[in-house]
Formats: sequence, C-alpha cells, structure tokens
Amino acid sequence: MEKQKKLVEAITDMEKDFPQWYTDVVKKADLAGYSQLKGCMIIRPYGYAIWELLQKQMDARFKETGHENVYMPMFIPESLLQKEKDHVEGFAPEVAWVTHGGETPLQERICVRPTSETLFCEHYSNIIQSYRDLPKLYNQWCSVVRWEKTTRPFLRTTEFLWQEGHTAHATAEEAQQETIKMLHVYADFCRDVLAIPVITGEKTAKERFAGAKATYTIESLMHDGKALQSGTSHNFGDGFAKAFDIQYTDKDNQLQYVHQTSWGTSTRLIGAIIMVHGDNSGLVLPPKIAPIQVVVIPIAQHKQGVLEKAEQLKTNLEAVARVKLDDTDKSAGWKFSEYEMKGVPIRLEIGPKDIEKNQVVLVRRDTSEKEVVSMDILETRIEQLLEEIQQNLLQRAAKRRDCKTYVAKTMEEFEKQLNTSQGFIKAMWCGEQSCEDAIKEKTAATSRCIPFEQEHISDSCVCCGKPAKHMVYWGRAY
Amino acid sequence: MEKQKKLVEAITDMEKDFPQWYTDVVKKADLAGYSQLKGCMIIRPYGYAIWELLQKQMDARFKETGHENVYMPMFIPESLLQKEKDHVEGFAPEVAWVTHGGETPLQERICVRPTSETLFCEHYSNIIQSYRDLPKLYNQWCSVVRWEKTTRPFLRTTEFLWQEGHTAHATAEEAQQETIKMLHVYADFCRDVLAIPVITGEKTAKERFAGAKATYTIESLMHDGKALQSGTSHNFGDGFAKAFDIQYTDKDNQLQYVHQTSWGTSTRLIGAIIMVHGDNSGLVLPPKIAPIQVVVIPIAQHKQGVLEKAEQLKTNLEAVARVKLDDTDKSAGWKFSEYEMKGVPIRLEIGPKDIEKNQVVLVRRDTSEKEVVSMDILETRIEQLLEEIQQNLLQRAAKRRDCKTYVAKTMEEFEKQLNTSQGFIKAMWCGEQSCEDAIKEKTAATSRCIPFEQEHISDSCVCCGKPAKHMVYWGRAY
Repeated sequence: MEKQKKLVEAITDMEKDFPQWYTDVVKKADLAGYSQLKGCMIIRPYGYAIWELLQKQMDARFKETGHENVYMPMFIPESLLQKEKDHVEGFAPEVAWVTHGGETPLQERICVRPTSETLFCEHYSNIIQSYRDLPKLYNQWCSVVRWEKTTRPFLRTTEFLWQEGHTAHATAEEAQQETIKMLHVYADFCRDVLAIPVITGEKTAKERFAGAKATYTIESLMHDGKALQSGTSHNFGDGFAKAFDIQYTDKDNQLQYVHQTSWGTSTRLIGAIIMVHGDNSGLVLPPKIAPIQVVVIPIAQHKQGVLEKAEQLKTNLEAVARVKLDDTDKSAGWKFSEYEMKGVPIRLEIGPKDIEKNQVVLVRRDTSEKEVVSMDILETRIEQLLEEIQQNLLQRAAKRRDCKTYVAKTMEEFEKQLNTSQGFIKAMWCGEQSCEDAIKEKTAATSRCIPFEQEHISDSCVCCGKPAKHMVYWGRAY
Repeated sequence: MEKQKKLVEAITDMEKDFPQWYTDVVKKADLAGYSQLKGCMIIRPYGYAIWELLQKQMDARFKETGHENVYMPMFIPESLLQKEKDHVEGFAPEVAWVTHGGETPLQERICVRPTSETLFCEHYSNIIQSYRDLPKLYNQWCSVVRWEKTTRPFLRTTEFLWQEGHTAHATAEEAQQETIKMLHVYADFCRDVLAIPVITGEKTAKERFAGAKATYTIESLMHDGKALQSGTSHNFGDGFAKAFDIQYTDKDNQLQYVHQTSWGTSTRLIGAIIMVHGDNSGLVLPPKIAPIQVVVIPIAQHKQGVLEKAEQLKTNLEAVARVKLDDTDKSAGWKFSEYEMKGVPIRLEIGPKDIEKNQVVLVRRDTSEKEVVSMDILETRIEQLLEEIQQNLLQRAAKRRDCKTYVAKTMEEFEKQLNTSQGFIKAMWCGEQSCEDAIKEKTAATSRCIPFEQEHISDSCVCCGKPAKHMVYWGRAY
C-alpha cells in the first residue's frame, strides 16, 4: 500500500510544473533512462516497443510511396562534410570528432554523422549516370549525433534514432513534388497513427535547414502550449548536386544536375506523444502505437476459475489486439495505477462476479469511463473501443490545439497572450528577418511556419507595421 | 547486346579466384558498395532488403523466447570500458576514439561501441535490485565499430550492423541454459531460414570472447572450404557482475551477484549466404530471405495482351509470394542474367504462346530446371516450389559441407588435406594451447570449435601425441 501511494505521488501535476511532469512520466512509465554520458539516453523496453510500432507503420508508408531502405556509414571524413559550404557551417559546431582508430592517430579526422546528406551525395555521384537511374528514392533508419548543450529525453539528446530520406530527381518540379509529398506522408501519419494534428507549412529563410533552398515542417502543439517541430522536409534544388558533381545524361544526351530532397523524423515524436496526450495519471497512448492495447487484470485472482478465465480471455483477444495479462501478486489497485501510468488504452477487469454474469468491465484510459460488456461480444467491442479511443484522442488534441491558437494584430496582443496562456499565435509578417529577430527577443517566440492555409488577419506586419506578406504561426518551442 | 555480354563476363569463376568471385557478386548483385572511408560499406537497397527480412525473422524468434529490444547509447566513456580488465584488453586496440564535441575537447575521451557489455552492465547495476527484477532478457539491433586493418564487405568491415543480446540471471545454471538456448536459436535460424547447416560447439579458451567464461559458436563452411564463424553466445558467469557491482537481493534477503550472457550475429550472415549458396551465375537466395521470390518476365512484351496478362499474374501471385514484374525495355535475355545474378529463386516467363495454352514457364534458380505449369494451379505450384528450393538449398549445402569434412589422425594427414582440398578437419586435441598455436603456425588452420557432438577418432592429440581430451573441428577461417 505504501509503495502504491509512492507511485501515484511520484507524478508532479502538469499544471504545477510541466517539465517535471514530463521527466516523471518518462521515468515512471519506463520509457527511458540516462546513461553515464551526459545527454545520451537509454531507450528502455517499453519506450523501444513504441518506437518499433511507430517505425513499422511509417516504414510501410515510405515503401508504399516507392522508397527503398539503405544503410550508409556512420562516419563522415572532414573533407566530405566540408564540400557544401552552408551545410558544414550549420553542422560542424555540433559534431563529435573521431581522431584515433585504436592507438593510431587518423590522418584526417572523421565525424559521427549529424545527418547524412554528404554521404548520400557522394554515393549518388557514383551511381547516377543516366536519366534511367532516376529518381533515386532512398531512406535510412539509423542514429545520429549532435553535441547538444541542453538535453531532454526524446526531445533533444546527443544521440537520437531517426529516419532520413534522401532523394534525387531529374527535374526541379519532381524534387518539389517529392518534398511536399513526404511532408504530407508525415502529417497523415501523425494524424492517423499518433492522433496528433499538425500545422503544415514552410519555414522562413532564417529557420531553413543548412544547405536547403526551402524547408517545410509539421508543427504540433503540446499540452503546455509550447510548439514542437515534429518533422521536416527539405528541397535542396541543385545546390548539393553542384557541390558534389551529381550529373546525369538526359534523353537528349545532355549533362544535367540532379535535384534533391531530404526529410526526417525522429524519436522526438515519442516526446510529442507524451506531451500531446498525457495527463496527471501518466502516459496516454493512441491504440495504434500502444505496445499493450488491453491489459487484463484478474480481480480476486486467488478465487477458483478467475485466472483460468482471464487467460482464456487473453488468448481470445489476441486475435484482435495486443494483450497482456498481469497475474502477478501485486494488488489490483497497484496494477490499475501502473497501467494508467503506462498509458494502456483499455483495462479489462474480470472477477468472480463477472464470471457468474458472463461479463467483464472495460475501463478507457482516455476518459476513465467504465462499461460492462458481455463476453459474447467482447472481441467486437474491443475493436470498436480501440478505434473510438484513437479517434477521441485526435479530436481532443485538435480541440485543445484550436483553443490554444490565438490571433495577434499588435505586439501588445502578441506579448500579452503569451504571458497569459501560451499557444500558437497567428500574426502577419512583412517577410524581413529583422522582425523575426525582434519578435524573438521580445517574446521568446519563433516563427514556426508560414502555413499552407493562409488567412488574412490584417494588412500590416505585427512587428514593424509595414505591408504584410504572410500569415505566420509563432510560438515558444521545444 | 554488348552490355549483356559485359554483365555475364564480369563474374570471375569461383574455381578460378574465389575472393574475386565474392567481390564480383557483392558488386554485380547490387548488395553493397564502398564509401570514401576505408572499410566502411554502403548497404544498397537489395542488400538491405535481405537484411530486413533476416532481421524480421530473427527478431520474431527472440521475442518468442521472451526477449525485449532496447537501445543503448553508441558511446562508451573510456573509464567505463576499462571496468572489466579482460574485456578492455580485447577491445581497446580496435576502437574509434572521440576526443572533441564540436570545437570543445572532451574531458574524458569516449569510444564508439565495439560491443555493449559495459553499457548493459552499467544499466543493469542501476535497474536490478531484487530477485523479482530477474531475469533481464534484453537485445538490441544497432551498428558497432571495430577498427579493422583488412576489410571485406559483409565479412569484416569497420562498421557493421548486428544484434547483441545481453541477459542477467539469478543463477549460474539459468545463465548457462540461456547461453545454450540462444546458440540453438541461431543454429535453427540458419538451418530453417538461411538454409545454412552449422556445427555447434564450444570455443577453446584461446578463442573465447574477451571477458567470457565460456564462448559457444555456430560454424559454417563456405564454398571454397573455408570456415565462417556465424554467431556466438557467451556465458560471463559473475565476472562482469563483480566488476560492475550488479547485485540483487534473493528470497532469503541475501545479496547475490547476477550471472550474465551475451550473444550476437551480424551482417556477416549475408556473407555466409553469398558464399554457401552462390554459383558462377551469381547470388542464389533461399526463398525465405529473398526480397524478390518470383520475377515475372514477359516474352515479346510488345505483343498484344502479354503485359496485361503478366500484370494480372503478378497481382494474383502477390498473395503467396514477393513478386516483381520487370516490364522495362531491356531484352529478355538481359533480364534473365540480371535476376540470376540477383539470386531470385523463381523466374516466371510468360509469352503469347503461353497465354494461348493457359500456361507459364517456371525456371528454378538453384537447379536451372524448367517446368511448364498451367495457370490454373500456378499459385499452389509457386508455394510448393519455393519450399522445394528452400529445402534443396539446405540439403545441397549440408552435402557439400559433409563432403568437405575430413578426418586427420596425424599432422601429415592434416596438412596434406588442407593443401589438397580445404574444409573442416576433425582431429583430436590434448587441450593445450601450445598445440593450437603449433597447428595454426603449420597449417594456418584454427580450432573452430569443440563440437557438442563428439566423435572418437583416436586416443591421442593430432599435434603432440599426448592423450586427447576432445575432438575438435579445425579449419582455415574468414
């Protein structure tokens, strides 16, 4: 009983201290732990199982859109990293440098990949000769390293797992189509699998990826009103192709440069899941990425027939869901708290009285609603309920996001809103970086994106008052 | 026509130059390429698709035996690597050292993991308290780095992909059971999925993993008669537990050290697939890990109805196999060579005459046998044929291995055999390392393992003539 109390007490209320709530959930739900090395996390079995489900479903979408997986080396020689000027400037300050192989100093130092554009470009320059070789639609799942000063599990770590797509096309039009297509693959995936609604749009020049001609982003809003960049898609034009000499012979036998894209998402998405759906009892998982979708908890399990029935239910339900039976000797109440903490979508309680009545009790994690269900229709009801929970989480997140999306016509409104209740601020912008800089200095908010869905809020820039070019989403961000 | 000739000419006969044949197959079957950095390979889409199929099926076997996946950091601080004396001696000479994060020199240098025992031990010392926390059955899929002087794609590369299982148990008996269980998971996997028969047994003390109490191995025999260590499983006893202070409270409230194991296989298995099954036309893939199991090649595809029928067949067959339709404008002969090179198990030819007769022609990659099959029973026949090919590859490999397994009672026989026709040599051994060293010096053969299935060949050690303790498999190895 004391231990149970401890478990529940251990979560800080999110309203009281959101960062501490986040850390508590990561730890108490057994998602990740720290290693001895600062900023490097250990992804524990429960956290990794979420990643595997996420990866499997995203990978299927990549393959459906014609992409192939490859594996590139983790090391980049310094001279290779330096081939594209903007790119090296963006990444060199935060890479880990290898200087020795065993006892031998290396002739040239090599870095652990922070991203793999340079490796893919080098490879493409070797394997692309003719228009028949195009497009190349490659992706890789791997880990990358960026030497970060401030780190938080899943959100910003020195090493993280991700996927990076890298494609090469014959024309600028095709590259632009690919860039936008993959952004929509991400947005659809977030909506349909993670139950996270996102804003899609273009980054301003200031926020562009190092070396990109255009960067597009999906932006989501966390429970605390802060924004999270959840995935990006870049159009490189022929900039990298020129730096790496990636040319092909077209149908008219003329040499042409290829046009390239890259796009990535990472374990950061697990941070988004925690901060979009979680509550003061812990994690809340969308059924599609829940390692356990239904936990079966026997009540008075020492009584005859209870465990047998629970096991039978588990076996039957395995046809329609990922099920776990917890028949350990912990108290039922302790188990309730534990699986709430782990965000399991449905708790199934089965005790002697239920068996008598040929029924079970189902409890939804998202709403805490209880329902009594006949065993005769259990499988069908579980399937429906998982779908209902998935939909409800999406609707709830969309509603919260909409409620926390504000409009500002003046800097006073802008500042006041952020200091009252954080969220997305929609405001007009002249297109000048000086205004972005000024807004950031005043409010700590950055431009999240120029959304594809533009709205007319006023005629003038919220900052300088000059004629506005775009409506922009602003926010304080992770 | 010139290009087609070139493709076929490009493979060296394996009897003429086996290493060159291997390199040709890796390159011509589009499995892997080299990166700019010596010893680091690029795994290309076709090679990576094989790895994905292998990984998926092996991972399922790990999960069936109760293991969970995790992800540990790729970096190990030097002080952590040094905690277990034998282990650091074994690995320090071949690790890559990171000395700078961005522009800042690190206070302590860190290495890129060559293997992760130290990281798992550190983690286990934090998360294991009570007997209730045991066993811990963890596995991870990742890449590791060993600074090798001589490298060959898949067989020995500076960076390679692998899985490493790391487990902790309450008793020495349980750890030993786990070590042997996982060795058999590997052996069964090789037999049932890769169609590779292996010898199972224990490594001699000399060949043990750095820090292990006992190392077990699966050894396979390549086409050229050289052996390949294809997977290993180690029992660490409580050596690492003592070095890392991993203790738990047992049921009697006494502190006890855990007993640990680790086990690993890698992309080296792709090297084994190439060298066990391949032939002078290229790769030969066991159906279970073939990214394309059936390639549909339309004959006279410009004629009316041919492509439509080919597409319809492809769609139907997708229910029972991984199918590709090649409707490019290359000649049929060129396509035949290309998919032979890629080791696709079944070629399906469909032309105007076949359509008239409601039939197709199937050609097996393993035997080159042709058969004419009615379209009415095509799906059933394809399923059968894939199974037949899978079985035939295993039987063929077992037969070849058995034919190349020799017995030596004297060093003269031993040497003569290896100089005539290489293979496994079964010979008795006294148990002294001096004899292992002498045999290696004379013949370049190493002890592959002390097989579980012992045979009595003679009473005395093949090298020194003293009383023999074990029958050992010897061979020159990759």
